[in-house]
Amino acid sequence: MNIQEHLSKVTEYFSPKVIGEVNDVYVKVAKIKGEDIPWHNHAHEDEAFFILNGELLFEEENKKPFIMKQGDFYVVKQGVNHRVSSEEECQIMLIENKSTAHTGEVKSTVTKSIEEQLK
Amino acid sequence: MNIQEHLSKVTEYFSPKVIGEVNDVYVKVAKIKGEDIPWHNHAHEDEAFFILNGELLFEEENKKPFIMKQGDFYVVKQGVNHRVSSEEECQIMLIENKSTAHTGEVKSTVTKSIEEQLK
Repeated sequence: MNIQEHLSKVTEYFSPKVIGEVNDVYVKVAKIKGEDIPWHNHAHEDEAFFILNGELLFEEENKKPFIMKQGDFYVVKQGVNHRVSSEEECQIMLIENKSTAHTGEVKSTVTKSIEEQLK
Repeated sequence: MNIQEHLSKVTEYFSPKVIGEVNDVYVKVAKIKGEDIPWHNHAHEDEAFFILNGELLFEEENKKPFIMKQGDFYVVKQGVNHRVSSEEECQIMLIENKSTAHTGEVKSTVTKSIEEQLK
């Protein structure tokens, strides 16, 4: 299925949707707009970001904040605190272990269960 | 890094290059042109394909061949025989377990070791 079709079904910001299962990994799409995602980390899991459309402000501890643009690919390593935000809508692909909670151990208003992400 | 920059470093067809490591998974880019990839499967591993540019003819056992276009995402499940080819250059992203051999158990002229894919 085309990624745009998957994205067209995403009606909420900060609400990743699983588009594929590859062994122990979920591939997801999400739309980001605003600053609702809290600083968090994934203690034992890396997380990959790939920008499909728009721009994403990427903040990571001990690093200068940087803007990710369409086609940019970046992996946050396990245990590293990070936060993503965007002024305008940004559409992203995520590659995460099935066990990864998208806001880490931090529960916030945008936190979605894996059941919600699989809908 | 931008995916186009990664692709610009790929000078050979059928020669996947690792662009990121996400836990037990490698994310790779590759360029396909021609029919050199043999029919193969990965006995215990799923493999995800995402089309970055161009068109890919996807053949899978017990399934009608189909064309994947830019933005199309597809996962071949473990154990399923498949083959990909393209008349014109097609640029793809692959998501595979680190243990996955890109042509399965089938050795062919295009088979690359993981060391070559990490260069």
